Amino acid sequence: MSKRLVVALSGGVGGAKLALGLSRVLPADELLVVANTGDDFEHLGLSISPDVDTLTYVLAGLDNPVTGWGRRDETWSFMDSIGELGGEDWFQLGDRDLALHVERTRRLRLGQTLSEVTSDICRRLGIGVRVVPMSDDRVRTRVRGDSGWIDFQDYFVRQQCAPVVHELAFDGATLARPQADIMAALRSGDVRAVIICPSNPFISIEPILAMSGMRDAIKLSGAPVVAVSPIIGGQAVKGPTAKMMGELGLEASAAGVAARYGDLLDAYIVDHADAAIGNVGARITIAKTLMTSVHDRKTLARLTLDAAEALASR
Amino acid sequence: MSKRLVVALSGGVGGAKLALGLSRVLPADELLVVANTGDDFEHLGLSISPDVDTLTYVLAGLDNPVTGWGRRDETWSFMDSIGELGGEDWFQLGDRDLALHVERTRRLRLGQTLSEVTSDICRRLGIGVRVVPMSDDRVRTRVRGDSGWIDFQDYFVRQQCAPVVHELAFDGATLARPQADIMAALRSGDVRAVIICPSNPFISIEPILAMSGMRDAIKLSGAPVVAVSPIIGGQAVKGPTAKMMGELGLEASAAGVAARYGDLLDAYIVDHADAAIGNVGARITIAKTLMTSVHDRKTLARLTLDAAEALASR
Repeated sequence: MSKRLVVALSGGVGGAKLALGLSRVLPADELLVVANTGDDFEHLGLSISPDVDTLTYVLAGLDNPVTGWGRRDETWSFMDSIGELGGEDWFQLGDRDLALHVERTRRLRLGQTLSEVTSDICRRLGIGVRVVPMSDDRVRTRVRGDSGWIDFQDYFVRQQCAPVVHELAFDGATLARPQADIMAALRSGDVRAVIICPSNPFISIEPILAMSGMRDAIKLSGAPVVAVSPIIGGQAVKGPTAKMMGELGLEASAAGVAARYGDLLDAYIVDHADAAIGNVGARITIAKTLMTSVHDRKTLARLTLDAAEALASR
Repeated sequence: MSKRLVVALSGGVGGAKLALGLSRVLPADELLVVANTGDDFEHLGLSISPDVDTLTYVLAGLDNPVTGWGRRDETWSFMDSIGELGGEDWFQLGDRDLALHVERTRRLRLGQTLSEVTSDICRRLGIGVRVVPMSDDRVRTRVRGDSGWIDFQDYFVRQQCAPVVHELAFDGATLARPQADIMAALRSGDVRAVIICPSNPFISIEPILAMSGMRDAIKLSGAPVVAVSPIIGGQAVKGPTAKMMGELGLEASAAGVAARYGDLLDAYIVDHADAAIGNVGARITIAKTLMTSVHDRKTLARLTLDAAEALASR
């Protein structure tokens, strides 16, 4: 009997596009989407999980197509008002989006895990596939800039990625237990592919891989690991990936990302712009990787599955 | 030198109308508005203070003239969304209003007192007069209905005052320390009047009076106590006052309210509809007590001050 499960590792916007594509070409019970929680933070007393939320909104069809984050048909009365009360207003929280943070925070305080809350909210929003946080334990990405270590959202949102990044750390990652469903899936012998979505490798994928046991579990699953490059012709589609690579002394290229994943990678899908990528130690597929339509998302999703299948049948 | 301070005890909607009137006819530093906090509760992980908030919005000119509670120009996206996430949606929280609850909750968790938070928020919203919670300690009004004791907001909002009220309790009131500025004012020898606003006596004023030392401090201040009846011709202007009086075996009338305040009362302002009130042990003023305009609010406010002055000059 052939293997069924696909495990996709994802950050926010870019990763969620491929996750949506996968959710459209796979039966719901064959896809497990693993969300980075290194970006999670506490703000205004609320527990906010940006990547979990972006995946949730995208998979529920509630995402804001203009911003890429947050909800569609959003209103901003809360933000208008929090400023006049002297509250912090550097992180944009739409009125509808806020409901998710308030409800999650309430449930976490009652002792529910982030996995339980996420699972229930996905069910209520009609999402068939499973979205799981990488861990129910606390992991916090931190960034060392010229002025020392700062919290990720301080870097990413408040300072809009302006600081030069010298180093990244994932506080808590080595102690955090990978979420149980992920490990159970990887150990099941039933995984046909591990897909690394086109997210920022440093801040979206590496927090997941930094947890103790995660890289080994992926390796031991025996499943082919297929990544889609988030870099096209030296540029990031969105976000600070290329800037960050330069600052970290790495080549801002599809090859540079592949080098970062190292021997984990079995197959790698890069854009036509990077067709001359050369040997990166993984089987290369050249494709259109910019996903501007749902059709693009599904097409790229199928390509990742095809790449995994080609490797499995070696 | 004549005494300067006016201390007004108030609940929400009705009381806030008179508090606004007082704020328009007195210099800002001569009015201290004491807000009932027996209605306060925790909901969705947020600390909500309905009477403090109504007073804040009314005095800042931000109140919703249609509902009497909440903010004007309000939007409801949060409420739309919290329901679909499985959150509790029986208590209406507008998007702008929510900013106040989130910011207050955040600051309380940082260790600020409700007094400090309220004072700062009033300042930021341009309110000149002082609004103080009756206590920084926890007092919770509870209602005994046919099915036993329930929380006040459960009775008041979720069950819309439907249960028959057999008894009221103010949990924590005897241990709660009255807010320091109130006691300092009452002890200053500088209070020219204590005004009991036309709020529900049982659920808005009695929690304030139930705190240890409060009745005595009012008595010892030497200031005349002037109440405005919340009952007009046997009917409450708004809310369950008349219904509650009947259920508690009291006469649902202006006289019944006066009897409830007992010997605390020096002067009592009742509506023309209650001109035949008779002897209630306090000097009666007959006036139009229904406040439909700002002019009405100011006129009634001046009447309460005149009534106090008439007593002081005996």
